[in-house]
Amino acid sequence: MAVYDDLMGFQRETEALAQVAGRLGWDQETVMPRGAVEQRAEEMGAMESVLHARRTDPRVGDWLAGLEGEELDAVGAANLRHIRRSYDRATKVPADLAAQLARVTSRAQGIWAEARANDDVAHFLPILTEVVALRREEAAALADGGSLYDALLDGYEPDATSADIAAMFDRMRPRLVALRERVMGSERSPAGLTGRFDADTQLALSNNIAKVFGYDFNHGRIDKAVHPFSSGSGHDVRITTRVDEADPFNCLYSTIHEVGHACYEQGIDDAHLLTPLGAGVSMGVHESQSRIYENQLGRSQAFTGYLFNQMQDRFGHAGAADAQAFYAAVNRVHSGYIRTEADEVHYNLHIMMRFDLERALISGDLDVADLEAAWNSRFEADFGVAVDRPSNGVLQDVHWSVGLFGYFPTYSLGNVYAGCLNKALRADLPDLDGQLAEGDTSGATGWLRQNLQQYGGLYTPVEVVTKACGQAPTEAPLLDYLDAKFGALYGV
Amino acid sequence: MAVYDDLMGFQRETEALAQVAGRLGWDQETVMPRGAVEQRAEEMGAMESVLHARRTDPRVGDWLAGLEGEELDAVGAANLRHIRRSYDRATKVPADLAAQLARVTSRAQGIWAEARANDDVAHFLPILTEVVALRREEAAALADGGSLYDALLDGYEPDATSADIAAMFDRMRPRLVALRERVMGSERSPAGLTGRFDADTQLALSNNIAKVFGYDFNHGRIDKAVHPFSSGSGHDVRITTRVDEADPFNCLYSTIHEVGHACYEQGIDDAHLLTPLGAGVSMGVHESQSRIYENQLGRSQAFTGYLFNQMQDRFGHAGAADAQAFYAAVNRVHSGYIRTEADEVHYNLHIMMRFDLERALISGDLDVADLEAAWNSRFEADFGVAVDRPSNGVLQDVHWSVGLFGYFPTYSLGNVYAGCLNKALRADLPDLDGQLAEGDTSGATGWLRQNLQQYGGLYTPVEVVTKACGQAPTEAPLLDYLDAKFGALYGV
Repeated sequence: MAVYDDLMGFQRETEALAQVAGRLGWDQETVMPRGAVEQRAEEMGAMESVLHARRTDPRVGDWLAGLEGEELDAVGAANLRHIRRSYDRATKVPADLAAQLARVTSRAQGIWAEARANDDVAHFLPILTEVVALRREEAAALADGGSLYDALLDGYEPDATSADIAAMFDRMRPRLVALRERVMGSERSPAGLTGRFDADTQLALSNNIAKVFGYDFNHGRIDKAVHPFSSGSGHDVRITTRVDEADPFNCLYSTIHEVGHACYEQGIDDAHLLTPLGAGVSMGVHESQSRIYENQLGRSQAFTGYLFNQMQDRFGHAGAADAQAFYAAVNRVHSGYIRTEADEVHYNLHIMMRFDLERALISGDLDVADLEAAWNSRFEADFGVAVDRPSNGVLQDVHWSVGLFGYFPTYSLGNVYAGCLNKALRADLPDLDGQLAEGDTSGATGWLRQNLQQYGGLYTPVEVVTKACGQAPTEAPLLDYLDAKFGALYGV
Repeated sequence: MAVYDDLMGFQRETEALAQVAGRLGWDQETVMPRGAVEQRAEEMGAMESVLHARRTDPRVGDWLAGLEGEELDAVGAANLRHIRRSYDRATKVPADLAAQLARVTSRAQGIWAEARANDDVAHFLPILTEVVALRREEAAALADGGSLYDALLDGYEPDATSADIAAMFDRMRPRLVALRERVMGSERSPAGLTGRFDADTQLALSNNIAKVFGYDFNHGRIDKAVHPFSSGSGHDVRITTRVDEADPFNCLYSTIHEVGHACYEQGIDDAHLLTPLGAGVSMGVHESQSRIYENQLGRSQAFTGYLFNQMQDRFGHAGAADAQAFYAAVNRVHSGYIRTEADEVHYNLHIMMRFDLERALISGDLDVADLEAAWNSRFEADFGVAVDRPSNGVLQDVHWSVGLFGYFPTYSLGNVYAGCLNKALRADLPDLDGQLAEGDTSGATGWLRQNLQQYGGLYTPVEVVTKACGQAPTEAPLLDYLDAKFGALYGV
């Protein structure tokens, strides 16, 4: 089919250019000379402008129209679905608005960083007001009269709706709150690690743990960066990590988390390379992989037993008296301010709060001027602690500054999907804990690759999780897992 | 002027994209995971295709036509000169031919590497025949009935002609040959360095020497790579180096060489950032900077005295009995096979040979099948030694495999320009050696920046050298410098 081949040839080049733009981002966060910031902004802007022109190229519209009603195989149909979706979203937003959003969010990120460093909310609010207004405008262009928030959410999690997510959160909340109350009321209060852990040894160990989890260094690399991230698809999927000599879990578990993201990308069938199917299908499914690697596998009693021995070998001590104390330290529950440091019990409560606040901002029910007060009162209600300063509160996350409204709930979807996958995986691999205790994750990672990762964008997010689990995803397996794990750890 | 502004706005984005493509090349040679080679080829191809489309964009032709006869200031006129030149060259070559050249040279480079590794000339000749034929075809498209070779040369050194270069080589040759014979007949035979030099210490020292020569790490970085190179313009100019524990000069002088290239780029007036004037004006002028940093400054008796002390401090020994022996070791003359390892006396003889051979290939006077024999007989005549194997002979350079015909003479132009600049610099800075002996290059590098580097592409190559030196460049200062330096070193 000549039309399909033309479209895919064009798309392949677009996908390759998108990889280049992504690698430019990696470069900026890892190796770029400090003085290159302004020039880099122009380079990124030029790449974005090329990509935007290709995504809205009228030829794409013509090719899509020419393929209307054609019978395609599953791969062809999925490719068309992704291309049409991208084309529709890109062409609905006026070019001026897209350019203005890029400029304002780029500026806003810098202002947010200053505001956070100085705990100065007032410094951030004017530009955040601009960002919210522009994203509302963009959402209106995308929404066809529907929900503004859902139009944004759909950019990260195709087919998800805020109504479904709100209903899911309503079901999750009582059980999470009850578990939190039992744990916080427990007489057990596990200690954190003690001692210091040499930075280079941490990096060597985390590189090794990355290999243990199946990360392929022939198609990737690990570097240090201020914020851990994974970037790239196909044969060049790089991750970053960071090191704190007082807290080896920071390096180790952020590495395992990013390895989960990276293994998803590395695990996609090579047949999909540089096509719309050659990347993780949604933020939620992506997060399911990082979470299951980090939590259900990495923080399991079995695997922490292996890790305890590894740390003893490498550092001469593991910072805990025995493997059980080490396991308890890895999974310590505490009412912290910071989402990225939250334990598995608290994490989704952080997300629910952000979800409600950002929905209200986008709907217009909450004014940016009232955001800090809303944050602080909600945090105290949910976490039982008053926010002590804005950098521990409303200024902690970069997301809103760069316009990421509708992104936060995908973290919880990831947790929920990880819960479902963990249940199915354990049903298929009864000896999983025996393998993990030996530092052998190949059973688990092979299962995930086989049942989910290889498909890339071939199925929709819910389809692929359903296919892997044999049933539609619900929050129940995650909540059952949390109840069992933390009930046992805290004797509640 | 709206037309000029439109053209320059478009051009600025093109320049930014060219920087991105260049950085992708840097990434490939330094940090790219090995398994990403094939995907990277597609990414590079996509970037090249975007750049080619922009360079031949009909709007550029329209803008240029619209500016015909307009009065512009010097910067505007120079920008138009560069853009017209690039547009004319890009549009004269049929797109199919350009694409075929890209494909064939990409393949040829791999085949050349295999052939060199196995000393198997026959493996390389078929694809080299293809490359020569395609480059001849391209040259014919560019030459408008003129010299094919000059059309290729012009791509690296605007306004240069093979007739001028041949005449210059004819004038240089007798004096170089005479000097070579005197030196090779001398009873002095300086020793090389002895001992080993720790790799990390070499890298630390060469980083420091880079700083000494004014390399700005805020707008650059140094990494290891198989082949040293400099890449990027403006605020992000990176270099690479390599280390051999038995030969610290390899690391040190390749670093100084690349620092010369990089300082040229870093030294260009910021007003020219991301415009056609914001990069070195030609390969020859570029090489003049790397050569003067490396040779006339870096290998001077004064600077090697400083370096001798630095090496004693860092390694506990400098591999030579005293500073004089060290200076003689740095400048040791020997009849080696390899151009990149050649001393200052032999270097241009290597180039003359390649220049004659490649002109004959492009004119059709020499058949690819006869190239090895022609190389070997010419080498023995010029260097007094028979080539022992192809990797030390006709297979040593990558250039022809990637289609770089017309490039080699720019190395000698660089040497000649460096000779002229050195003479003018020393006339202006009588105490230069006193400064260099203290490890202070700021007088010299400041002079070069002020008199040449800052202009980027504002003047033509010959114009900018003439302006810096107060007279048109000739080969005489280089030959005088070589006679004086090596006459003294070898007592001849």
